[in-house]
Amino acid sequence: MRYSVTLINILFGLVASTVLLAAENPESGDIRVNGERLNATMEHMKTFGMSDTGGSTRVAYSDANRVAISYLSALMQQSGLTPRIDVAGNLVGRRGGKVAGLAPIVAGSHVDTVPNGGHYDGIVGVMAAIEVARTLYEADYELDHPLEVVVWSNEEGGKTGSRSYMGSVESREFELPSLGDKTLGEGIKYLGGHPDRLAENTRNRGDISSYIELHIEQGAILDREEISIGVVEGIVGIKRWYITVDGFANHAGTTPMNQRQDALYTAALIVAEVRRIITEEPGKQVGTVGKLEVDPGVPNVISGRVDFSLEIRDLDMEKVSRLFSQIEASATKLAADNDTTVTFDQYYESPAAITDERIKKIVNDSANALQLTSMHMPSGAGHDAQSMKHIAPLGMIFVPSRGGISHAPGEFTSEQQITDGANVLLQTIIGMDQQIK
Amino acid sequence: MRYSVTLINILFGLVASTVLLAAENPESGDIRVNGERLNATMEHMKTFGMSDTGGSTRVAYSDANRVAISYLSALMQQSGLTPRIDVAGNLVGRRGGKVAGLAPIVAGSHVDTVPNGGHYDGIVGVMAAIEVARTLYEADYELDHPLEVVVWSNEEGGKTGSRSYMGSVESREFELPSLGDKTLGEGIKYLGGHPDRLAENTRNRGDISSYIELHIEQGAILDREEISIGVVEGIVGIKRWYITVDGFANHAGTTPMNQRQDALYTAALIVAEVRRIITEEPGKQVGTVGKLEVDPGVPNVISGRVDFSLEIRDLDMEKVSRLFSQIEASATKLAADNDTTVTFDQYYESPAAITDERIKKIVNDSANALQLTSMHMPSGAGHDAQSMKHIAPLGMIFVPSRGGISHAPGEFTSEQQITDGANVLLQTIIGMDQQIK
Repeated sequence: MRYSVTLINILFGLVASTVLLAAENPESGDIRVNGERLNATMEHMKTFGMSDTGGSTRVAYSDANRVAISYLSALMQQSGLTPRIDVAGNLVGRRGGKVAGLAPIVAGSHVDTVPNGGHYDGIVGVMAAIEVARTLYEADYELDHPLEVVVWSNEEGGKTGSRSYMGSVESREFELPSLGDKTLGEGIKYLGGHPDRLAENTRNRGDISSYIELHIEQGAILDREEISIGVVEGIVGIKRWYITVDGFANHAGTTPMNQRQDALYTAALIVAEVRRIITEEPGKQVGTVGKLEVDPGVPNVISGRVDFSLEIRDLDMEKVSRLFSQIEASATKLAADNDTTVTFDQYYESPAAITDERIKKIVNDSANALQLTSMHMPSGAGHDAQSMKHIAPLGMIFVPSRGGISHAPGEFTSEQQITDGANVLLQTIIGMDQQIK
Repeated sequence: MRYSVTLINILFGLVASTVLLAAENPESGDIRVNGERLNATMEHMKTFGMSDTGGSTRVAYSDANRVAISYLSALMQQSGLTPRIDVAGNLVGRRGGKVAGLAPIVAGSHVDTVPNGGHYDGIVGVMAAIEVARTLYEADYELDHPLEVVVWSNEEGGKTGSRSYMGSVESREFELPSLGDKTLGEGIKYLGGHPDRLAENTRNRGDISSYIELHIEQGAILDREEISIGVVEGIVGIKRWYITVDGFANHAGTTPMNQRQDALYTAALIVAEVRRIITEEPGKQVGTVGKLEVDPGVPNVISGRVDFSLEIRDLDMEKVSRLFSQIEASATKLAADNDTTVTFDQYYESPAAITDERIKKIVNDSANALQLTSMHMPSGAGHDAQSMKHIAPLGMIFVPSRGGISHAPGEFTSEQQITDGANVLLQTIIGMDQQIK
């Protein structure tokens, strides 16, 4: 039923587009997306998995996710893109290029959300990329390269779709639960993919000409600075450790202060020290203790053991390692000074993904040409783009996210900001087509 | 079956005691307990609720607790005490005094343990008091005052037995779970008490001549200093608060360090500040943060809220309040400095119970006369004795506890230390009988 409504929409769209098809072929720098239409498709996407709170619960592999993909598939067809579902459940819409034998430019993002998430994280990048394809199609502007708009599957649950391009999805992951009620394997099948054939998705360097992703910032920097466009310098690398402080659980009434081996006291000193060391050095590195558990964790017992997490992120992995070494040395001394011991266990590493210098310049120049303010910044959050780092030159464009709110119903980017971002994406794709062969 | 074995044990005990009954009546200062017999009864107590780990799981109102009380009741009868179970399930063994109309001297402690606790906490005080009564009885030494040895019920689960003397046990407590499988009301009945008649137990000032309790220290001070006897200055008062730091949960990757409202960072600074403030001032006060919970508590999210406990103990309640005020002021400033807020909620207060100057002197003099080393010290842990503070002059005697270990199978006090403690208890009771009318 909804699909039929969408089909009617397609017909409207096609009718509307014929008018422009007859128009004169403009200079590439003058082409602009249809912001009203783009924001109308953003509005329509909200209907797939709207949560009670007004947010979005369109978790990967859910009914809402599948119906949204059907809608996007129809929208791609209106936009001159030929859609297909690949083996990983990614929706790929392709338009051929003018020059035979060139690898495609890929523009992607995702439309799955966290439970009770927002309507912008990922979605802006997908809707804008389709609008850009449609704009080029309606303008009868042909790129040299093929253009592929990709809706990556299961970004929020582990970037499964984009990681299939890296060949790094392990078969044991198919048994893992998704954010919905299916395993990853069941979910991929539900979207029309083939987990048993996932290896077919692996891309090598050269298989993609270049990759671009528009996304909301998910921080508050652009919003606070009132800047329209973030030129992303890269996606930060992440290392995570579990840190354990061992003390001695003892009676809180009978143990004198100078006889205590209080694990929580030592842990508190280390948490403060993490902040000191991370902020002492100039730069945009961040360090976080987000999880901390106390054993036995009762008011009248001195804690015997505390387990806590440490995460450090930066574009420079050597800096991450250096900062950790400082924290490790300082924590070890603090533990010894307080009759406790501390151990460190690194359990996660995601290397930084640096964006391509040429693409950064194209994004920046495109923003300037559109008279939009811009600034360079790292992406502190992970994105599908990072899966491309060994495959193709990659770029990312950020648009502001009000108050930096993300993964929550309050996520918001204005219609003008979305339109501005889409126009930068459009001009960036044209620039990438011309400058990156 | 177990009860029958106990009956056989009683018979053995009675046979053994008849030998001493024939002995000459010594000067009061020369009377000594039978240490071997005392430690044999300590050993026997271990059999009631021995846990798999070698500790004791004789929780209040359990089968093991009831059988132990049957044994103690029989032992009291051997010791010249007439046992009865009072309305709160306390076992009270009484021997009349020489002078008519005097209120009794009460010597008490408890034999219930925490799950997988030790064999000394409470038990030393009960077994020694019975041995003291037996020694006096066998020596044909009559006190002026009646002597009551009380085995308080449910010390570990809330001092129910001793608090019934204060009249402070509320009827709603009968519905609360005990440390075993019964409610407090069911448990009191199981031991032979009458929850509906609990008010009969209330004592007023003058109803008891004086109260004395021998107990293991539960700290490591006597053990470390190799001192035999602790002259207890009082049972410290306790105040407990829940402290909440509210920040703002945010993305650990996209939120710059200087934009964070990190509740855990603020909480860590406060935990460190608690230690600084508590130890800055001379004295034996202790302050503890033993429980701390982080929300949302995941490695890649800056914490939005932290709830933690604060406990301060000291003999001087004004000092407790003053230290808290300092912590409160400092924490409020630290929270504000870090874009967070902090709130305090006092949820528990147990006022200090100061021991009687005369009894402290009697205990100290008794230790000296016995050529035992002694020192004055507060009790950091709570005890049944504190329930007597509005009823009678009270005293406590501590014996060393190896390594300060308590509420664990490793709890240990040597046979000699127990015998020494019992002899001090004996001489103290004689002294109280003579000096406190």
